[in-house]
Amino acid sequence: MPEEKKIDWYSISEKLHKYYGGKIETIPKVPVRTLNDFAIWYTPGVAEPSMRIAKDPELSFEYTSRWNTIAIVSDGTRVLGLGKIGPEGAYPVMEGKGLIFKYLGGVDAVPLVHRARDPEKFLELLELVEPSYGGINLEDIESPKCFYILEEARKRLNIPVWHDDQQGTAAITLAGLINALKIVNKDIKDVGIALVGTGAANVALYRLLKAYGADLKKITAIDSKGVLHPDRPDIDKLMVSNKWKYQIAIETEGGGKRGGVPEAMEGADVVIAASKPGPGTIKKEWVSKMAKDAIVFAEANPVPEIWPWEAKEAGARIVATGRSDFPNQVNNSLVFPGVFRGVLNVRAKTITDEMAIAASLEIARFAEEKGIHEDYIVPTMEEWEVYPRVATAVALKAIEQGLARKVMTRDEVYQMSLEIIKSTMDKYKLLYKNGLIKDIPKEVNI
Amino acid sequence: MPEEKKIDWYSISEKLHKYYGGKIETIPKVPVRTLNDFAIWYTPGVAEPSMRIAKDPELSFEYTSRWNTIAIVSDGTRVLGLGKIGPEGAYPVMEGKGLIFKYLGGVDAVPLVHRARDPEKFLELLELVEPSYGGINLEDIESPKCFYILEEARKRLNIPVWHDDQQGTAAITLAGLINALKIVNKDIKDVGIALVGTGAANVALYRLLKAYGADLKKITAIDSKGVLHPDRPDIDKLMVSNKWKYQIAIETEGGGKRGGVPEAMEGADVVIAASKPGPGTIKKEWVSKMAKDAIVFAEANPVPEIWPWEAKEAGARIVATGRSDFPNQVNNSLVFPGVFRGVLNVRAKTITDEMAIAASLEIARFAEEKGIHEDYIVPTMEEWEVYPRVATAVALKAIEQGLARKVMTRDEVYQMSLEIIKSTMDKYKLLYKNGLIKDIPKEVNI
Repeated sequence: MPEEKKIDWYSISEKLHKYYGGKIETIPKVPVRTLNDFAIWYTPGVAEPSMRIAKDPELSFEYTSRWNTIAIVSDGTRVLGLGKIGPEGAYPVMEGKGLIFKYLGGVDAVPLVHRARDPEKFLELLELVEPSYGGINLEDIESPKCFYILEEARKRLNIPVWHDDQQGTAAITLAGLINALKIVNKDIKDVGIALVGTGAANVALYRLLKAYGADLKKITAIDSKGVLHPDRPDIDKLMVSNKWKYQIAIETEGGGKRGGVPEAMEGADVVIAASKPGPGTIKKEWVSKMAKDAIVFAEANPVPEIWPWEAKEAGARIVATGRSDFPNQVNNSLVFPGVFRGVLNVRAKTITDEMAIAASLEIARFAEEKGIHEDYIVPTMEEWEVYPRVATAVALKAIEQGLARKVMTRDEVYQMSLEIIKSTMDKYKLLYKNGLIKDIPKEVNI
Repeated sequence: MPEEKKIDWYSISEKLHKYYGGKIETIPKVPVRTLNDFAIWYTPGVAEPSMRIAKDPELSFEYTSRWNTIAIVSDGTRVLGLGKIGPEGAYPVMEGKGLIFKYLGGVDAVPLVHRARDPEKFLELLELVEPSYGGINLEDIESPKCFYILEEARKRLNIPVWHDDQQGTAAITLAGLINALKIVNKDIKDVGIALVGTGAANVALYRLLKAYGADLKKITAIDSKGVLHPDRPDIDKLMVSNKWKYQIAIETEGGGKRGGVPEAMEGADVVIAASKPGPGTIKKEWVSKMAKDAIVFAEANPVPEIWPWEAKEAGARIVATGRSDFPNQVNNSLVFPGVFRGVLNVRAKTITDEMAIAASLEIARFAEEKGIHEDYIVPTMEEWEVYPRVATAVALKAIEQGLARKVMTRDEVYQMSLEIIKSTMDKYKLLYKNGLIKDIPKEVNI
């Protein structure tokens, strides 16, 4: 058993958040050579772009930063593993996401944490502020509310809405699964899949699996009360309280299984756990009863449902977790920067499941080109070439589906993505090298 | 009569807004030396600041950029002189303001344009998103709604709320008036003042004049129907439809005058017009009937109510306008960057009228130190030393009034302001010099 890393990220993070007072800031992107230039950027000149937009609101994507700006929206009801810590508590997470969005995807992403816990109020808020943004990234919202909000927001808004805990996690999981199945030489149509946990990630994954061609009758989803199937005593209640789980129960019929996690895993080719932190949430003996060449995704953070070495000892051939210190990190950060880069480039009106699957396929393809094996089914975050590739795949799918306001060629989307990401990197590096982003103080030894 | 400037700011602005695709962007302000640093800025480390904030939401001012971030909020109902052009149409103006906020005040200011036209919805929106911001700058909202929204928002929110069209314009006007009165050697208590127009700017100015010690019985306010006084046939209607104008009518009793603008101006020492663009809104013969050493503020844009040379020919001693191409520009930009720099530095909970007056006094003092005369009653925007001075004056007033979360010394506030403003400038210049903010293309010859 490898030693747990000894770095105290919590204490370091606390010190450094205070030292820097947050993580992102605004900066001019236009010249102000003298204050006379404000006559261009503000009154009187600004009246002209404003008037033109007034006549055609779509032009706000031409004349303002809206085309590249998204809100990272949370009500703070399910932040990390911390639960309902409120909008203020959610802020550091949203701002961190904003940092990653800019750093990896060149996307201007600003935190919008708010007090609208009621789903209708939440949706109304999104509708009211839509003109400020080119897209919405929902984050850390409790389930099942998050399903309803995503579903409705996608209908009501004319800009892309994405819930990263649903679609981001599902898309990177699907990418990993695609490559894992290649390695074990199994087909998505044939495999038995156990979904342990039916929160945001697995409900969204189920939808992607369905669209991707999995056999629903071979999927067994399990919540805290056991296998979801049509004969559960609470099935009528579910129809009202959580129609997404209800639908899974009806469509899969429990994959022909009854009982709990051990029963669901028995004979399964794949288990995808996105439930509660382990170790021991998934037991070795359950893994040992899976099919040959078993694939185990244990995605809970900070501690996976089963340690990778335990799963391997029990016979799993491929194991993925959410952690960067093990192979095969299932990491949303491989998905969302590229997805938004892509939809913003072509001004897509929404993000469909097909676009999410296009992201999964491109991520899988990228890793395959590098050479996949048991310990490399998805790229790592360092392989930054993946972001413009994902952007391109998603943008092209948006164009194909007639959902893009701007039609571009593959090469145009790719070059645009590359340039924007590179430009952010250049700016960051210049500021850092010149001491205008202060280095981490010596006393914080990291 | 001087020739009107021939630069076509509208056409240049249209071209350049498109070329740059907006004016501000986000940028990391923390080191990301390798992607491992995301363990500090995002999971797992970020859980620590989040948890601490969950226990004490005030800590969001310590651990996030909230302490320096404000929203520039507009419903697009009265944008520039363009009227109801909608939230999208308002965006370029708000983003321009964001640029100025950062450039002159080091404040991170992001546009929040929205569809909540109903005042209660507008207020609810502000209450919902309060956790995202350290302050709110309201902008370009129709009157009288803007008075109600400012009044209520100041009550309901625990962060500073400022309506620049009210308080910003009023504060710079008061600053100019203070110095103009010094030059003509008159006292605020003794002068007769005609307020032409009772929209956002003059209603707010009235409040500041009252707090500053003007004799209300010597103030005559005029709206489109003439002098506001208690015997107007619409006075009961006003009580309901616009209680702010009603209050002025009751308190001033029309300054003892009846009739319209000419009657109000007759014998007045000061006329402050913030009404509709001229020329000819104010006539030469009216100015000629004012008291000796008359002071004329003609603030309409783009064309003042009376041309400065006409006012001078008619006997005015001091003339101020909203334009940068005449002396004595009454320019909000001298006020808001410093005001917010000050309140953000000390985490003030609100911005009182006394704090606005402190800004006016400091601006007046700054100009006086440089040497005031008929053509220099307020600083110009280029005199950037005024911004940290305003910040300091406002912050100290907040501390004095017990409204600051952080207590600092004069020198601490001043140094903090200076450093933040300088740091923005350094970053901007470095990026511009290195071509990472592209120069204005040659074909746009400006």
